[in-house]
Amino acid sequence: MSTEVGYGQERGVGVRVAFQGERGAFSEEAAVRLLGQEIELVPRPTFDALYAAIDDGVADVILSPIENSLAGTVQRSCDLLLARKLTIQGEVVIPIMMCLIGASEARWEDIHSVESHPVALAQCENFLSEHPHIRRIVAEDTAGSVRNIVQGKDASRAAIAGRYAAEFYGGAVLREHVEDNRENYTRFLLLSRSMEIPPGANKLSLVLHLAHRPGSLHAGLEPFAKRRIDLLRIESRPIQGRPWEYRFYLDLAASTQDPEVSAALEELRARGNEIAVLGCYVAAQIAV
Amino acid sequence: MSTEVGYGQERGVGVRVAFQGERGAFSEEAAVRLLGQEIELVPRPTFDALYAAIDDGVADVILSPIENSLAGTVQRSCDLLLARKLTIQGEVVIPIMMCLIGASEARWEDIHSVESHPVALAQCENFLSEHPHIRRIVAEDTAGSVRNIVQGKDASRAAIAGRYAAEFYGGAVLREHVEDNRENYTRFLLLSRSMEIPPGANKLSLVLHLAHRPGSLHAGLEPFAKRRIDLLRIESRPIQGRPWEYRFYLDLAASTQDPEVSAALEELRARGNEIAVLGCYVAAQIAV
Repeated sequence: MSTEVGYGQERGVGVRVAFQGERGAFSEEAAVRLLGQEIELVPRPTFDALYAAIDDGVADVILSPIENSLAGTVQRSCDLLLARKLTIQGEVVIPIMMCLIGASEARWEDIHSVESHPVALAQCENFLSEHPHIRRIVAEDTAGSVRNIVQGKDASRAAIAGRYAAEFYGGAVLREHVEDNRENYTRFLLLSRSMEIPPGANKLSLVLHLAHRPGSLHAGLEPFAKRRIDLLRIESRPIQGRPWEYRFYLDLAASTQDPEVSAALEELRARGNEIAVLGCYVAAQIAV
Repeated sequence: MSTEVGYGQERGVGVRVAFQGERGAFSEEAAVRLLGQEIELVPRPTFDALYAAIDDGVADVILSPIENSLAGTVQRSCDLLLARKLTIQGEVVIPIMMCLIGASEARWEDIHSVESHPVALAQCENFLSEHPHIRRIVAEDTAGSVRNIVQGKDASRAAIAGRYAAEFYGGAVLREHVEDNRENYTRFLLLSRSMEIPPGANKLSLVLHLAHRPGSLHAGLEPFAKRRIDLLRIESRPIQGRPWEYRFYLDLAASTQDPEVSAALEELRARGNEIAVLGCYVAAQIAV
C-alpha cells in the first residue's frame, strides 16, 4: 500500500480513502477524480465518523466536503477541520449535476414518484414543479435512493442523484440536469496526518483567533493586504462555550514557503493573535 | 390591531407574528418574549414559507432565527434575509435549554425511547450516551415530538425539547439541562416591511458586495475600523450563479443616525462597493 497521495497529481494504489455517505455518493466521485480508480473506498455514515476514520485505523486519508457554491460552508465539516487534528493535503472541485434515475428498464413516461435527500429535492424545485404528477419522497441519501430504486425494480419509481451513482448501481439516467442552477459545485479537502507540503503548493488555509476589540478583524487582515496576498475566502465559526465570539477560517492564494507569507504570519503572532496553519496545498481548478 | 411593534420595547396586541416550526417551538417562545403574550402566532412549516408570510398576507411581522451560539449562522435564513425584501426591526436572544419530556403521568424510570429533531438529539449526546437503554428516534420537529408524546399517552416514550413546549402541550419535564453545552443560545431577528428606525437603535446590519481583488475585504472594513466602529460579526455567503464569489453580512455596533457611520457608508460607496442597510435596531442583551 502506498501512502504517497495528497498532492492531487499522484495517484494512490490501495490507499484507504474515507468519505461521508454511501457507495456511489458525490464524495466518492470526488475521491476517484482526485486519487484515481485504484484507491480503497471507505464509506462513513456521518461527518463525525469521517473525521475519526484515521484515528479509528480504517483510513489513511479522508476526503471531506467543505463548501458548496450555492449552499456555502458545510458547517459541521468546517468545525471538525478547525479542531486541527488533520492537515489539508489537497482539494478537488466537482460539478453537482442532478439526474433523474430509474431502475434499469424504467421509462420516463412511467415515473410517478421520486426519492432523494431533502437538499437534493430542494435543488430541483423547478423541474419537480413542472411535473406535479411526480410525487416527492424524502430519503436519507442521494446514492442510497438510487440503490433502493434499482433493487426495487419498480418502473414507476425514480431517484435524484449524480450520474456516478446511476453508473455505480446500474440505474437508468432518464433526465440530466434536473437541478435549478447549473453553477452548482462542491469543493472537497483531502486531509491526512502528514505535515508535508506538496510541490507547487499555492493555497494556504489558516485559523485565526482575534482579540475582541474594534477593528481587530481589519487589523488581522492587514499583514496580508499590505503584502498583496490575496484573501480567497473568510468564514467565521462560533467558539463553543463563548457565545458571540468567533474564530476565522481563511483561505489565501499563498504558500508558507514564500518569505513574505512567513513575515505576515509572524507579524500577526507578534501582535498577540493566535494563528494556526491548517494546510498548504495545490489549489483545485474551478472548471472541471 | 396595532402594528406598533418591532422596537423590542413595545408590545403588539393582536399583531400577527410568523415563525418557523410548530406551535410550542423555541421560535414561538422567542416571539412571546420579544412581543408579549397578546400577539397572534402564525406557524410556518419552512424558512421559505416564513419569509413569504408578509407577502402572503398572513402576517404583519416575522421572527427568524439567524444564529445559534454553537452551530453558527442559520444559512437558509441568512440567504433569505440578504434577498432584502424585509427590514430588521429588532432582535431577541433566548437560551436553548433542552428537557426530557414525557406524557403527563410519565416517570423517568419508565422511559425507554426519546424522540426529537436530529440536531436536538445531537446536542444531548452526553446525556444519551450515559443512558444507553433509551433508544433514539429521529423526528421532524422538537415541539412536534412533545405533542406526539403527550397525545400518545405511552409512559415509556419521551421527547427532547424546550420547557416552553412541555408547558404548551401539557407534558411532564422529567429532566432539565440534558444538553451537552449550556452556553447554547439562539438569536432571532424581527423583520417587517417598515423602514422606520426604532429609538435607541445601536446595532446596524449591512450586506456588502466587494470587487474581487487582493485586499478588498481589508479595504472594505477600513472605513469602519478607522472610525473605531465595532464590527460585531461578519458572515460570508455565496453568490448564486457566481461560484466562489461571496457577499458579506456585517453586524456593527452603530446607528445610521450617527454622522460618523453615514460617512463610513458614503466612503465605501464612493470606492465602488455595493452596500445596503438590512436594518438599524436595538441590540438584544445576551444574558436573559
